[in-house]
Amino acid sequence: MAIDPRAHGAALRALHGGKRILVLPNAWDAASARLIEQAGFPAIATSSAGVAFALGYPDGERIPRSEMVAAVVRIATCVRIPVTADMEAGYGPGPDDVAATVRDVIAAGAVGMNLEDGDPVRGGVFALEVAVERVRAARAAADATGIPFVLNARTDLFLDQIGEPETRLERAVERLRAYRAAGADCLFAPGVSDIPTITALVRDVGGPLNILGGAAAPPIPELQRLGVARVSLGSGPMRASLGVLRRITEELKTAGTYRTVTEGAPNHRELNQLFDRKP
Amino acid sequence: MAIDPRAHGAALRALHGGKRILVLPNAWDAASARLIEQAGFPAIATSSAGVAFALGYPDGERIPRSEMVAAVVRIATCVRIPVTADMEAGYGPGPDDVAATVRDVIAAGAVGMNLEDGDPVRGGVFALEVAVERVRAARAAADATGIPFVLNARTDLFLDQIGEPETRLERAVERLRAYRAAGADCLFAPGVSDIPTITALVRDVGGPLNILGGAAAPPIPELQRLGVARVSLGSGPMRASLGVLRRITEELKTAGTYRTVTEGAPNHRELNQLFDRKP
Repeated sequence: MAIDPRAHGAALRALHGGKRILVLPNAWDAASARLIEQAGFPAIATSSAGVAFALGYPDGERIPRSEMVAAVVRIATCVRIPVTADMEAGYGPGPDDVAATVRDVIAAGAVGMNLEDGDPVRGGVFALEVAVERVRAARAAADATGIPFVLNARTDLFLDQIGEPETRLERAVERLRAYRAAGADCLFAPGVSDIPTITALVRDVGGPLNILGGAAAPPIPELQRLGVARVSLGSGPMRASLGVLRRITEELKTAGTYRTVTEGAPNHRELNQLFDRKP
Repeated sequence: MAIDPRAHGAALRALHGGKRILVLPNAWDAASARLIEQAGFPAIATSSAGVAFALGYPDGERIPRSEMVAAVVRIATCVRIPVTADMEAGYGPGPDDVAATVRDVIAAGAVGMNLEDGDPVRGGVFALEVAVERVRAARAAADATGIPFVLNARTDLFLDQIGEPETRLERAVERLRAYRAAGADCLFAPGVSDIPTITALVRDVGGPLNILGGAAAPPIPELQRLGVARVSLGSGPMRASLGVLRRITEELKTAGTYRTVTEGAPNHRELNQLFDRKP
């Protein structure tokens, strides 16, 4: 492929410029990534939950880092657009763990990474100063490679409903601003879907904001109007793909017919051609 | 898991007894396998095309054997029911290649295997005597382990429309009977969907018959009535899962809404629980 990671990183960073909202329907394997690329999206974001489920693991760093990185390699090998990897909380508590994960992700061919502040071992979020050190370590590890690596720092305060609801927005803003100051390119607040909170975050976090799309979230045009820079879908697309499998098995068990398994499915020949580029 | 492969092999073989048709909605990764198990199916069959696509390869032995085997390991680790692996034409032309593939598949935790007679390198089918030697080598390699391994020998005459249509049924019967005599447990004729041909195959192949379900095939109750022992879905379920991803991306690009990505999808908590059994 001979893809220049510097060009990829610069392209991914430019997509966060805010003129047009960056829409990322997260991939969970090489096939989903290739289909998203074919659909015209400008970058691929992986879903850690999607990758974990596909490989038979629960979410939450139960999958070994090496297996998660191997999935990123397969995805980055299969597409020609920039890839950003969801690496959960960085696979280890310390700044050194996070730095090692950044180096692995870059070696895997990705030019961006999600880093959460939720502590997968003890629950809750890392203390602010620890979380900031982790972001700083990720930034330094990335910068040492010379690649314009897009670091998406995420706070889990909303998603995991941590602390008092009354002060959550204020604490989230404090964290996301600190992550931005520590070198994050984008700030991610999954679990937020109401317009007043999104509006406040856009105004106050001091950098591009990533919102998780889904049932409760405003449609993408509304998110763009609110000034959101990036919308991703998390494990939604992967779970929807399992939803269709569930409907297929139900139809096979009841009527014994093949409507769900055939309608709207790309055919074998088309997919053979789609994946024929891999060396 | 400490699953006894002998018990698994015996159970899978018994499912070919013909009392009730064995329905196998093929899996392509650990998640799909686990969902199929949860839906109550008694065994998992992999789809070589599904696995290849998911990992970014075209079908037709373009994926290295080691990567295909690694996918079988992930699937067999994730479920507690018998697994049979689609290993295309055995990853190599010679009987020794086929035997090595059988040993790999058993080491991966599977207790059955599909073996095709199509030659992925030169096209067409292997000469009958060569194809029979390959089946015999697979049988011997499996028997040497002491595991009642279910060998599903497939002819590609129908699927690849090889030779004169007028003599195709006759040649297919000749091949499938020879594979049965060489030790195949089940005979697979993908590409057949018309009732007269299915009827003739059931009558003449001398063993349990596997038919590929899909748009053109009779519904499962009709296949059972005709005496078909096993119906599998090939890459159909995997391709259908990509179909829903395509509809998701289309909706994101147009209305910017989340209907397709949310409706009928298992939620994150449910999948976390479903995959929590893996050590």
